[in-house]
Amino acid sequence: MKKSLSSIVMLSAAISSMAAVGITSPSGLLSLEVDVDSKGIPTYSLDYKGKQIITPSKLGLNADETKFTEGFTIVGTDTCTVDRTWQPVWGEYSDVRDNFRELAVHLKGENPDRVMTVRFRVFDDGVGFRYELPAQNGSNYLTLKDELTEFNYTDNHKLYCIPGDYDTDEYLWSETTFTELPDALRNYRKHSEAQRVDGVTIQTPMLIKTKDSVYINAHEAALDGYPAMLLDVNPEKYTMKAHLVPDRLGVSAYLQLPFNTPWRTLIVSDDARDILASQLVLNLNEPCKIEDTSWIKPMKFIGVWWEMFTGNVKTWAYSDDYLAKPGVTDYSKLKSNGRHPANTENVKRYIDFAAKHGIDGVLVEGWNEGWEDWASYRKNRQFLFDKPYPDFNLPELRDYAKEKGVKLIMHHETAANAADYELQLDRAFQFMKDNNYDAVKTGYVGAVIPRSEHHTSQWMVDHVRHVIERAADYKIMVDSHEAPRPTGLCRTYPNWLAQESARGGEFESFGGNPPSHTCMLPFTRLKGGPMDYTPGLFETKLSYYGEGKDSQAGTTLARQLALYLTMPSPIQMACDLPENYERFPDAFQFIKDVPVDWSDSRYLEAEPNRYITVARLDKNSDDWYVGAITDENSRVAMIDLSFLPKDGKYEATIYEDAPDAHWKDNPQAYKIRTLKVKPGMKLKQKLAPGGGAAIRIRKL
Amino acid sequence: MKKSLSSIVMLSAAISSMAAVGITSPSGLLSLEVDVDSKGIPTYSLDYKGKQIITPSKLGLNADETKFTEGFTIVGTDTCTVDRTWQPVWGEYSDVRDNFRELAVHLKGENPDRVMTVRFRVFDDGVGFRYELPAQNGSNYLTLKDELTEFNYTDNHKLYCIPGDYDTDEYLWSETTFTELPDALRNYRKHSEAQRVDGVTIQTPMLIKTKDSVYINAHEAALDGYPAMLLDVNPEKYTMKAHLVPDRLGVSAYLQLPFNTPWRTLIVSDDARDILASQLVLNLNEPCKIEDTSWIKPMKFIGVWWEMFTGNVKTWAYSDDYLAKPGVTDYSKLKSNGRHPANTENVKRYIDFAAKHGIDGVLVEGWNEGWEDWASYRKNRQFLFDKPYPDFNLPELRDYAKEKGVKLIMHHETAANAADYELQLDRAFQFMKDNNYDAVKTGYVGAVIPRSEHHTSQWMVDHVRHVIERAADYKIMVDSHEAPRPTGLCRTYPNWLAQESARGGEFESFGGNPPSHTCMLPFTRLKGGPMDYTPGLFETKLSYYGEGKDSQAGTTLARQLALYLTMPSPIQMACDLPENYERFPDAFQFIKDVPVDWSDSRYLEAEPNRYITVARLDKNSDDWYVGAITDENSRVAMIDLSFLPKDGKYEATIYEDAPDAHWKDNPQAYKIRTLKVKPGMKLKQKLAPGGGAAIRIRKL
Repeated sequence: MKKSLSSIVMLSAAISSMAAVGITSPSGLLSLEVDVDSKGIPTYSLDYKGKQIITPSKLGLNADETKFTEGFTIVGTDTCTVDRTWQPVWGEYSDVRDNFRELAVHLKGENPDRVMTVRFRVFDDGVGFRYELPAQNGSNYLTLKDELTEFNYTDNHKLYCIPGDYDTDEYLWSETTFTELPDALRNYRKHSEAQRVDGVTIQTPMLIKTKDSVYINAHEAALDGYPAMLLDVNPEKYTMKAHLVPDRLGVSAYLQLPFNTPWRTLIVSDDARDILASQLVLNLNEPCKIEDTSWIKPMKFIGVWWEMFTGNVKTWAYSDDYLAKPGVTDYSKLKSNGRHPANTENVKRYIDFAAKHGIDGVLVEGWNEGWEDWASYRKNRQFLFDKPYPDFNLPELRDYAKEKGVKLIMHHETAANAADYELQLDRAFQFMKDNNYDAVKTGYVGAVIPRSEHHTSQWMVDHVRHVIERAADYKIMVDSHEAPRPTGLCRTYPNWLAQESARGGEFESFGGNPPSHTCMLPFTRLKGGPMDYTPGLFETKLSYYGEGKDSQAGTTLARQLALYLTMPSPIQMACDLPENYERFPDAFQFIKDVPVDWSDSRYLEAEPNRYITVARLDKNSDDWYVGAITDENSRVAMIDLSFLPKDGKYEATIYEDAPDAHWKDNPQAYKIRTLKVKPGMKLKQKLAPGGGAAIRIRKL
Repeated sequence: MKKSLSSIVMLSAAISSMAAVGITSPSGLLSLEVDVDSKGIPTYSLDYKGKQIITPSKLGLNADETKFTEGFTIVGTDTCTVDRTWQPVWGEYSDVRDNFRELAVHLKGENPDRVMTVRFRVFDDGVGFRYELPAQNGSNYLTLKDELTEFNYTDNHKLYCIPGDYDTDEYLWSETTFTELPDALRNYRKHSEAQRVDGVTIQTPMLIKTKDSVYINAHEAALDGYPAMLLDVNPEKYTMKAHLVPDRLGVSAYLQLPFNTPWRTLIVSDDARDILASQLVLNLNEPCKIEDTSWIKPMKFIGVWWEMFTGNVKTWAYSDDYLAKPGVTDYSKLKSNGRHPANTENVKRYIDFAAKHGIDGVLVEGWNEGWEDWASYRKNRQFLFDKPYPDFNLPELRDYAKEKGVKLIMHHETAANAADYELQLDRAFQFMKDNNYDAVKTGYVGAVIPRSEHHTSQWMVDHVRHVIERAADYKIMVDSHEAPRPTGLCRTYPNWLAQESARGGEFESFGGNPPSHTCMLPFTRLKGGPMDYTPGLFETKLSYYGEGKDSQAGTTLARQLALYLTMPSPIQMACDLPENYERFPDAFQFIKDVPVDWSDSRYLEAEPNRYITVARLDKNSDDWYVGAITDENSRVAMIDLSFLPKDGKYEATIYEDAPDAHWKDNPQAYKIRTLKVKPGMKLKQKLAPGGGAAIRIRKL
């Protein structure tokens, strides 16, 4: 910040007002221009391959104390070019290139007296920009009301998006257009504990496809100390405007200057595969802040979890006494309901299964006191994170798991009582370490406490980042559910292995996810970071959670294997019950084999909401893996093996839909075949409706 | 609760509706009647010495989910008589008698179907009652809107009260009447960060004096899991109604049934001294929950504190760089402002002074990172409770204090960011124990975070009780400032030595406290528990904090000694600077001598807002101490020594106002004289305007 400030001082002495300024991406694909209009409002516009894709769009911030909106002049600029490569702790690539040209536009307003820099980074695959507010004359505490950032598009583009909501992103995707968006949003049911935003508002990440087939992913990077951003859409004018998630008192953010906002990001390409391959969001995040990362270990896990979703009989709660009060009730005196799978004997069964099949971890949900009435969402104190239920013998299980070489994974459901979780955080993490746990799945289901907050308001953004930092102090890895959607902070805190933050696999038991859903998530949700989607569902005939009626998962069995490739994550669940895997041991072999960390990735085919085909190179061997999925329609994936090194001979094991497979009628029909392959070969791989294929390619 | 429930069932079988029920206190002084009116609204009334002092007043609770207001019938009662004596860990008496008759009135409503018990305890010095809500048919989670409890008085009584406020009780007292109350409330200035309640609303504890000179103290006992109660006053009808402090979203309380509310208390006597002597509020609290109390030790302390109030030059902050961010800023690189008394050398000076004079502890405020902008009241993260400033060498001071036999007292100012404090609580307490601290002064100045809360809303009540419980886990004693006003919970958690929760001695530097102020607090604020009033001010000519102009304390020096008797607390500060005590070593001798824990107390003279004379017996010797104070008028206190055991000879050392002493013009004029006294003697002790006298009586 000091550097920028001196630039301002230096340049403003020489130049009282500058004309529009611009910059192009390293190869010239993208070209950005920044100007100040007649009212002194800063604007930016963006061209892709010589054609404007963002028309002049306003920039600015509006606080109770002062406005950073108009009356500005450009008093200086800084530019630089950066080309560097960094190595993530885990991910899709062992090396990530970070190559951009930067334009920092220094703005000054006279009345009131204030300074602001907008910093743009223009990559060949997109642009990121943020507001930088240095210390001002006068108050350096701002009560932020509004961010004025606009994204003005050029036509009635196709939109892929979910409704604006302050509390949840667990929605199916709409494929719509600007003009059809209001109708599309009306079709969404309200979540009971979530706050849907009235008006034509959507969430990020969202995807646009122009009539020229230019794809634009809009999101944000490095969301920290600031609320999440929604987008208010004007369906007639094809414009969007930032809509910061306020707290329940109507304040967007309390800021102390100097402060930099998150980056607003646009990933742009006319090749849909580039959207999937882009590392722009990660590149805009700060480098890893954890010095020793040797304890961060990608992993696969099974869990005492799906038992509570399927069949409608098992419970997280130990007892049916819904008047149990955590911290007050003596649980040893409560009567077990006999439907509590987080018990010592059953957990041992999972540990045995994990040990037998080389699965790293076992998650156990429902192990701790507080579930009896967790969905009341109103208690100042809810869960106890260091109090196992009476039938969960933790010392015994700790020793048993250790002996079997399996890691137990802790579960911290907070019922969105983040205040209560903060209170217990140190004790909870110390309790984990004392009992040999290295990883935790956190949960925030329900209405947030503190009651002033939403799931994605500033305080909660800050809370979750703090949990990650504190977890790192204890060398604990985190998989957070119902937390603010990811914005690439996993680069900075690689112990943040994954998040849910979207409609996950669990919805297969809430009515099902259509096959297209997982053809959409990699284009949107996954640009922020890995998702704990919980693939690996072999038994797709389910009962609708809590309602008893049937629910058919939107997938074939083979497709579930492909998801381990199309939904990359350093922590992957094998979500189904051990007994279901034992019914299909040959298919389960793929889940046992598939890595969760990669040194290279090649997106072979992609179209949002339609299909994805990707090949990835195991970080710890020479094996390649390919995953291909389609939507509700069958498809022939064209798998070009030219990514294989030329000097090798290879054997491919293909897990594919049987010819008569169908997600609805015949999901468990799969075939496994082995064939010799070589570089340059093109495999025509048939995918059933809602199907997929997973391939392991070993060098011979 | 189960007992009550079975009674209901049993009795309701036999009796469908009962007539009014009543009960009298053990000696018959008070008589209570409970009835249900024509709408089925429960009411109670109270007689004192045969005359009604509370006319029929409604009872009830109103939740979003259901109403406990009307349509009730009395379906049963339970009565019992209790006479027991308990021993507090510390206090005014070594034995406390708890003698009452109890009437539990079981109520049942048909439409909706619901049950409620109102439990009354009638003592000879007052009454307490609470609502007990057992588990209901249907939801056992209530979103409480309102408590309907009325206190209907009989005439235009005199009222001693402070304005209703959700966030602060640091007000001077009004002596007024029902009809004059609206005008009296208009005279109060609003605190900047506090939320004064509009309308004719006052706080508890408050005091009434009827035209027949019956004194009634109204308050509550055992406030836990519930918001604090204010009182809405109808000045024409002489009635009051409970006004629960809501959160900022308008909800009074989130309750899980079964739940018992706090006790609503009325202490009643026609002798003002009985109000002071009453232990009714403590009696209505639960017995001590801490098994081993051996580590709880009453104490006196001095502190690096008054330096920041007087003279206007010293600061809690280490640096004047108000952009410092806790957790981000490297404080070792900030420049000290040179006006930071919480530095190693100065603290050593205080330790030396404490060691020399046998003072147990030294409080140090401003020792930790975060003070640079603490009054911004808007940062999600403010103070760090385990990060000393660079000039505060904690290991060195820890060792130095230990060597000198002095205890350092920690300070945890939270700037009312209770969420941030909860987050750090375990670390903070562990840090204290690691550094040999046993006691902490907590502070909650400013607007509360979580932003949904007020200082006295349910969440904050719960927060502070939790801090006390967690402190007990670490064997830490607590002196809490700006916390919800006390309601006797110090009986249950005797590590809660004291609270501020009223306008304290610090206000002597904010314009001064009139002498009558401390003649009022024992009748009101102190009924909930001890106050850390910070007596011992020897230099009464002060500068107005933050404004530079003069501020004259409303006290003589001798009166400051008397406050150690009239404001009893197990933790007492000697608030002034060491150098001021060194100017008056003979007077300081009394502060060195005076105990802070008592085996007996005798209130000899008392009139609210006018004067108090009290004698107390040291818990650890046969020495008696007497304190007498008056208001702005001089007075002759009549000290009847008949409390002295008959078989002894005694020597009294009297610290008194000099004949020409006056709080304003000549406050430091005092005399010390010694005389032989014997039981039955009556001392006529002259007190100057705003003056007082303190006496130590040793058995020879």
